Amino acid sequence: MRQDRVEDARGKAAFREIVEHPGAVAILALNDNLEAVLVKQHRQPAGEVLLEIPAGKLEPNEETLSCAQRELLEETGLKAEQWQELSCFYTSPGFCDELIYLYLAEGLSKGVATTSDPEENILEAVIPLSQAGSMIADGLIKDGKTIIALQYAMLKKKILTDKL
Amino acid sequence: MRQDRVEDARGKAAFREIVEHPGAVAILALNDNLEAVLVKQHRQPAGEVLLEIPAGKLEPNEETLSCAQRELLEETGLKAEQWQELSCFYTSPGFCDELIYLYLAEGLSKGVATTSDPEENILEAVIPLSQAGSMIADGLIKDGKTIIALQYAMLKKKILTDKL
Repeated sequence: MRQDRVEDARGKAAFREIVEHPGAVAILALNDNLEAVLVKQHRQPAGEVLLEIPAGKLEPNEETLSCAQRELLEETGLKAEQWQELSCFYTSPGFCDELIYLYLAEGLSKGVATTSDPEENILEAVIPLSQAGSMIADGLIKDGKTIIALQYAMLKKKILTDKL
Repeated sequence: MRQDRVEDARGKAAFREIVEHPGAVAILALNDNLEAVLVKQHRQPAGEVLLEIPAGKLEPNEETLSCAQRELLEETGLKAEQWQELSCFYTSPGFCDELIYLYLAEGLSKGVATTSDPEENILEAVIPLSQAGSMIADGLIKDGKTIIALQYAMLKKKILTDKL
């Protein structure tokens, strides 16, 4: 957390509290059946279990792609043949500098997880893209980065639904 | 900011730093030409000017719809005939409890702004949905809630593009 001094258009000074974050990656892992691999975990700030795409914070000096490959393996035991960076976005630019690098991972196969974090209790869940729109509309998916990833996948694969 | 004590699957205690947030609203304002009304403002945490949908924090005891109507008017001078709550999502549930209530506003017309915040220097920008996909892919739009809203609009209005 830091405080920045800023000035408005009339030169009036104000202070902004800013949460500093190392940045993160998130992975849209799609299998050949047009299903996305998600994970379920308890999120203390939300006070509930959330369904999210695999994701994790960048380690110091870690490349974003290496981090994405590491997190996918740690959280799902999967590796991917094709990787593509889709976008990079701020989660909450009003008060926090967190940037998420979103990757698309395809050509999935079982890898060998070596360094999974014992503090993380993560369950895998595979959902068809054809159900993603209604799961978002019904509030079953309420994590921002996961909504971005699933909507991207629906647009990319042209999976349209009236349940939005 | 608060610290919560949590336990992992093996009963090991750990502490989590949690950023507390009052919650916020964001508005996907669509006009009759399939254009979205966005705003441009300097974001201190990002260190740059971002293109975003109108949004703002909930005041104490404020209803989410009232807040959305107030923020749309303050930031764009617009009011809307039709309002629909689309979804509600966590921006960064790993460390922050911020929830954003996303509204769709249609039937736009000029209102009379009464309480705009002089600390905000906000410029309006109207973008066609047909260009939204490429603007996200090219990094011209890099705010998470704005990406969610524009992707939703493309899916809802069936505006598909290969530039994703």
